[in-house]
Amino acid sequence: MTATHQRIVLASRPKGAVTPENFRLEQVPMPQPGPGEVLVRNHYLSLDPYMRGRMEESKSYAEPQKIGETMIGGTVGVVEISNHAGLAAGDTVVGLLGWQEYGVANGRQLMKVDTGAMPMSVYLGPVGMPGVTAWYGLNRICGPKPGETVLVSAASGAVGSVVGQLAKLSGCRAIGIAGGPDKCEYVVSELGFDACLDHRQFADVKSMVRALREVAPQGVDGLFENVGGVCLDAALACMNPFGRIALCGLIAGYGGQDIAIHNVRMLLVMRLKAQGFIVSEHMDVWPQALAELGQGVATGRIKYRETIADGLAAAPEAFIGLLAGRNFGKQLVKLA
Amino acid sequence: MTATHQRIVLASRPKGAVTPENFRLEQVPMPQPGPGEVLVRNHYLSLDPYMRGRMEESKSYAEPQKIGETMIGGTVGVVEISNHAGLAAGDTVVGLLGWQEYGVANGRQLMKVDTGAMPMSVYLGPVGMPGVTAWYGLNRICGPKPGETVLVSAASGAVGSVVGQLAKLSGCRAIGIAGGPDKCEYVVSELGFDACLDHRQFADVKSMVRALREVAPQGVDGLFENVGGVCLDAALACMNPFGRIALCGLIAGYGGQDIAIHNVRMLLVMRLKAQGFIVSEHMDVWPQALAELGQGVATGRIKYRETIADGLAAAPEAFIGLLAGRNFGKQLVKLA
Repeated sequence: MTATHQRIVLASRPKGAVTPENFRLEQVPMPQPGPGEVLVRNHYLSLDPYMRGRMEESKSYAEPQKIGETMIGGTVGVVEISNHAGLAAGDTVVGLLGWQEYGVANGRQLMKVDTGAMPMSVYLGPVGMPGVTAWYGLNRICGPKPGETVLVSAASGAVGSVVGQLAKLSGCRAIGIAGGPDKCEYVVSELGFDACLDHRQFADVKSMVRALREVAPQGVDGLFENVGGVCLDAALACMNPFGRIALCGLIAGYGGQDIAIHNVRMLLVMRLKAQGFIVSEHMDVWPQALAELGQGVATGRIKYRETIADGLAAAPEAFIGLLAGRNFGKQLVKLA
Repeated sequence: MTATHQRIVLASRPKGAVTPENFRLEQVPMPQPGPGEVLVRNHYLSLDPYMRGRMEESKSYAEPQKIGETMIGGTVGVVEISNHAGLAAGDTVVGLLGWQEYGVANGRQLMKVDTGAMPMSVYLGPVGMPGVTAWYGLNRICGPKPGETVLVSAASGAVGSVVGQLAKLSGCRAIGIAGGPDKCEYVVSELGFDACLDHRQFADVKSMVRALREVAPQGVDGLFENVGGVCLDAALACMNPFGRIALCGLIAGYGGQDIAIHNVRMLLVMRLKAQGFIVSEHMDVWPQALAELGQGVATGRIKYRETIADGLAAAPEAFIGLLAGRNFGKQLVKLA
């Protein structure tokens, strides 16, 4: 093991769009595990849209990331040194060790995972936080019944891809919205959605509503919203009475864009329920969700795709690409 | 009894604002009650914002009002002739007999009410549909806990006035929004709200947010929305984590105005729940709600105010005034 390793810290807060200058790569001393602690070599870093919120100083659901501190992030890696009874060197563990090559955490904050049936990266995707996010929003907020129609934006992404596949497994019709023909093709042919619209093809809400009505002629009962803006406004116009909306992300507005919605009247007229949520506040569902998702992936009923950036230094550009939708499926950074 | 009576029909659908020309007063033959039916002389007609929606042809929660048919509306009156076992001449009954002096309905569609303790008009206000609307949205959607803050728009109106008073009875802090200093004064001094803002004093969302933060320094936990537009957008900015929003009305947009909301992000960041509802779809709560509201009014713990227009011919102007907020409290039309 080397005496130093690399990490990326938040150098400055973005003004609008995130730029590479908001990050700084540093060479720092290797951390040492204390009593009960574990040193982990991170193999994969997860990049997720929520990180954009943490870069802001403004009021959000979590404390803002401090300037000069290691960027927060989910990781999967292998234990190097363990001072914790439940973990041994060589164990594969999921944690929140951030944008760095090595990390130290109390053993209780790490989850040992089985890499016999699945590669470790899966635990940052469909069998990890994004998968549970999909599971919670779909099952606990959208509450889909067989025969109903579920619409999900960012449908080829880490969360959206699982939402649609779970909806299909529940006997629903699944409609996706994604950016570009390749992603739409993948969502339908590979993931098995019934249809997928390319949001780039629509100049305004009106034309998107027309297209949505064509692919969802019976209306939308459950909406899983990851994007906001035009996508949400168009979806609102297609909701059925008593429809449910899980508000998971509003990535269209993460750069400060106005994401006003005009079809507010639909919420009232159709007696809709819209609910925002954060999956980390619902830890009680994780065991059940992870068990179902793990089985789905192991048996091939839940498919996934990854975009893997190589090396820690590539993380900032990969993250900027994620916010712009340039990734395809789950965005990871390979560190080892 | 005369051989004819008067009614008001929908003459044309409004284009934007409602005008007197959208209505037509007609002299028609007195209706005759058939088997099981009852002839009622209407004493009061209830005017309510939902009627505006029925005048539209576009998709709404109810069938549109047909051109040439009697305008829909809640009524309270006295039985003249009864062919129904449960009702007798002289009984006071609440029904949906519409904008007309007399009406016929099956006895099962009429509710006999007790006018010993309260005047009959109360059954169109705090102990009627508006009261149950307030009760349902507050108790079943906002779910206020003692010590929390409840905000309600159109606070001096038939629904809003009950919302705030019920919130106070539940141990909450109640904040109102109303139009004009007289209404605000009434909401605080008479109804006992903790504060009331005059929405006419604010040029934009920002200035309204500032004022809301002053009167609700601990934030808003439950929002009962009757107005929409700037009121809703400003309220969103003041919501606490896990806040609940009962969407009851969006009167700011009933004339076709854009009532876009910009603070969509708050729904996600604060993990809010917003739910539209229509009280007639929740008949199961009516008995409990009416019992509580009746006791509240009889004991003086729930206060109310009425604006009474005189005679059926005055109904269109009174309705137009209601949509513009020119009424004060419950808008009624006295027919007898």
